[in-house]
Amino acid sequence: MSQLSDIYRTSFSLLTDLYQLTMAYGYWKQAMAERDAVFHLTFRTHPFDGQFAIACGLRHAVSLLKELRFSEDDLAYLSSLQGADDQPLFGEEFLEYLRQIRFSCDVDAMPEGTAVFAHEPLVRVSGPLLQAQLLETALLNIINFQTLIATKAARVCQAAQGDPVLEFGLRRAQGIDGGLTASRAAYIGGAAATSNVLAGKLFDIPVKGTHAHSWLMSFDTEREAFNAYAAALPNNCVFLVDTYDTIEGVRNAAVVGKELGKQGHEMLGVRLDSGDLAELSNQARVVLDEAGFHDAAIVGSNDLDEHSIACLKRQGAKVSVWGVGTKLVTGYDQPALGGVYKLSALRDDAGWKPKIKLSEDRIKVSTPGKLQVRRFVANDGQCLGDIMFDELSAMDGPATGVPLTESEVWSPASHEYEDLLVPVFRGGEQVYQLPSIHDSRARTSKQLQMLDPSITRLDDPRPYRVALEPSLHETKERLIEAAQRKDA
Amino acid sequence: MSQLSDIYRTSFSLLTDLYQLTMAYGYWKQAMAERDAVFHLTFRTHPFDGQFAIACGLRHAVSLLKELRFSEDDLAYLSSLQGADDQPLFGEEFLEYLRQIRFSCDVDAMPEGTAVFAHEPLVRVSGPLLQAQLLETALLNIINFQTLIATKAARVCQAAQGDPVLEFGLRRAQGIDGGLTASRAAYIGGAAATSNVLAGKLFDIPVKGTHAHSWLMSFDTEREAFNAYAAALPNNCVFLVDTYDTIEGVRNAAVVGKELGKQGHEMLGVRLDSGDLAELSNQARVVLDEAGFHDAAIVGSNDLDEHSIACLKRQGAKVSVWGVGTKLVTGYDQPALGGVYKLSALRDDAGWKPKIKLSEDRIKVSTPGKLQVRRFVANDGQCLGDIMFDELSAMDGPATGVPLTESEVWSPASHEYEDLLVPVFRGGEQVYQLPSIHDSRARTSKQLQMLDPSITRLDDPRPYRVALEPSLHETKERLIEAAQRKDA
Repeated sequence: MSQLSDIYRTSFSLLTDLYQLTMAYGYWKQAMAERDAVFHLTFRTHPFDGQFAIACGLRHAVSLLKELRFSEDDLAYLSSLQGADDQPLFGEEFLEYLRQIRFSCDVDAMPEGTAVFAHEPLVRVSGPLLQAQLLETALLNIINFQTLIATKAARVCQAAQGDPVLEFGLRRAQGIDGGLTASRAAYIGGAAATSNVLAGKLFDIPVKGTHAHSWLMSFDTEREAFNAYAAALPNNCVFLVDTYDTIEGVRNAAVVGKELGKQGHEMLGVRLDSGDLAELSNQARVVLDEAGFHDAAIVGSNDLDEHSIACLKRQGAKVSVWGVGTKLVTGYDQPALGGVYKLSALRDDAGWKPKIKLSEDRIKVSTPGKLQVRRFVANDGQCLGDIMFDELSAMDGPATGVPLTESEVWSPASHEYEDLLVPVFRGGEQVYQLPSIHDSRARTSKQLQMLDPSITRLDDPRPYRVALEPSLHETKERLIEAAQRKDA
Repeated sequence: MSQLSDIYRTSFSLLTDLYQLTMAYGYWKQAMAERDAVFHLTFRTHPFDGQFAIACGLRHAVSLLKELRFSEDDLAYLSSLQGADDQPLFGEEFLEYLRQIRFSCDVDAMPEGTAVFAHEPLVRVSGPLLQAQLLETALLNIINFQTLIATKAARVCQAAQGDPVLEFGLRRAQGIDGGLTASRAAYIGGAAATSNVLAGKLFDIPVKGTHAHSWLMSFDTEREAFNAYAAALPNNCVFLVDTYDTIEGVRNAAVVGKELGKQGHEMLGVRLDSGDLAELSNQARVVLDEAGFHDAAIVGSNDLDEHSIACLKRQGAKVSVWGVGTKLVTGYDQPALGGVYKLSALRDDAGWKPKIKLSEDRIKVSTPGKLQVRRFVANDGQCLGDIMFDELSAMDGPATGVPLTESEVWSPASHEYEDLLVPVFRGGEQVYQLPSIHDSRARTSKQLQMLDPSITRLDDPRPYRVALEPSLHETKERLIEAAQRKDA
């Protein structure tokens, strides 16, 4: 391929692990391809040692599902794959079957910006076993990463206590799309803007940026560099002041800012990108205030994350806008969410059979059925807890639940609730109107306000209550016992 | 946008930080846009506490550079951006200038698969200041990530001591392209194959995969599941044996493998995905050998990286193929390479002026000039050390050098050398024939063999010698002193 964009001018139906296709072939050979199945996409541990996550990525997942269709090019490639005996891996009849496939599943999912907790399905796929299985890898890729970054952004914004957070991680992001979708997820998680111009254009995110150290290096003096910048972009002046001596830089910025003022423009602020941000931001504030720039922002950057921002806040830093890059867009301290996608029910001639995936660790055992998550909300709008129930057996929904980590039944103190999984596809047709990115961002903010601060805090957060409707709890226990007998 | 692929059916010219464009506007306003400049892309610290890295990403960087052209769509977007006064950020004349831009830089770079060390340029861009500056973010994005993952793969493969390493991280990778380019970089770094079918198709990488736990969950017994798989794909049988009891699973695999043998097919192996891989692989080996499957592979997976593989090797694990996912494709313990892109020379009417970026940490000060890296090689093929020199002042190249962390002059014990930066673009025209991915992978392997094992080992590696040609060393020292005087 000669052009970068050619790489992406492709069908994404092969964006999957080979074993999904070999299993698909197996199901097809066994005449199981069109058996009805239910899969849930869940994670088992909250990222970043937290007790919550923010669901994100659904928009791209929807796009991907709508495009599930094998191109002739894809089929030619699959046809070229060989097994150990140098014979084709896949039979021609199967490839013909793939050629005819049109997405026909039902999909339910949590809207982007929803607060989600360990073991709850973010996405539920029900439909033909072969199709539902094939989607696993791509759904995990998209939802895992965007949920990870939206969660990180929510944590960073929380540490910033309402100050705007600017995301500028593109240069250290994991590939082009790692950068683009990180910018998107960071915005949904609460970031105010991105430096990533293409993300701004593609996803309607505000973009921000002024100048770098290299601007300074192209001029003989700092004053000269600031003046030249102000002459070109008088309506976008945030001066980077730490190239030589930071406080001297703030003074130079103030001088240039006064000239700007005479021309009817406003100096927006200064940026500190090195040194002790707590100390320097206080000194910079004094210089700016003395020069009359009470509204000028102090942008702080340099390897920040939620913990360093919280620490700077505790030290009384006067930073008013936080620039966060690498540690936001890569989820640095935990660069992957361990989401899984598990079969939870399979229909045969006798009807639906619930399925679990065993694990030595009891809490990691998957929950069977076709799950919905009901979130109970108190009169004051605070979330009380979630109860998962199986729509195959308890369509009316639950009034009580057995918390995952306890054994006593819990009764919510309110009858107000929201069912979190909303219909996205029915029979392969999209039935969900995707909200704007701004609405998804607003949802994050609202959802976080509904959670007790003890759940969202950075240090030693308390777990949120997630429970199983009692008959679902019993079914799961029964399946675990049966599987253990089979195992023994 | 309604289709996922639409996101990528875009010009990538806006894949940059906004400040690159505001600086570009500033350079243009100052009539500096077309001044000749030189930038180097370097990193300051080897990733993963190592002492080497493997250059990767050049192919995608070349594609990106060839496409540097602002579409009408891009220009309309830029034209819509506003400053603090709600007036346009960019003037129309400037946008017209961008419309006319055609890439015209010279680019030199290390071929993919080259062993590269801290402070050495992986990419050198020389040409009009505005263009060279604009490229910063995208070049860093591409080269940082692919170099990070190729290096991780080289480390993992080294730990595997020649056993094949399979990459299957797509589900936890950072976005679609994070997955695709990670598969590519992992292959160049030494992985034998990927599970990522789209990466296989797009980049000509071998793909591997058999079945998952979900296959087992769709059948009542393990034997039934193995039989069904063998019936469908008799030429691709690696049975996942740890769903119930691992060693019982190996026995079941052996039974099905014997049936396969009667049909003229070979069971390729078993896969262990949980538990104590050292212990279980030894037990599995005994069972397989006793059943006559001496050639059957034991594939080990489960959250592996170079350290856990090295540890399993020390414990005598009988794993013969290593499946590595999340920790490879995200560079888990260090998910970003901190590459930087610094102005190192700028031409004015008086000629070229060398430039440095100061830092409080002396080793972080950038090296001025237009650099080439000369690698000296002993008669036995072992690398002795690298000397960087400035092509603007010492075209003949160096015979001695001052190591970066020492002060005594070093004279290589050989006159054999390779200049590592090769011409890629001249005046915007591609002059470099991109090697195949297989050749790049072979280069990695050869380069690693040329390094003393003390440099590439996982534990307590020794630094490789990187030096500056003496007059370059002097120029740098002089610039540091001058800048410190300006600073003081």
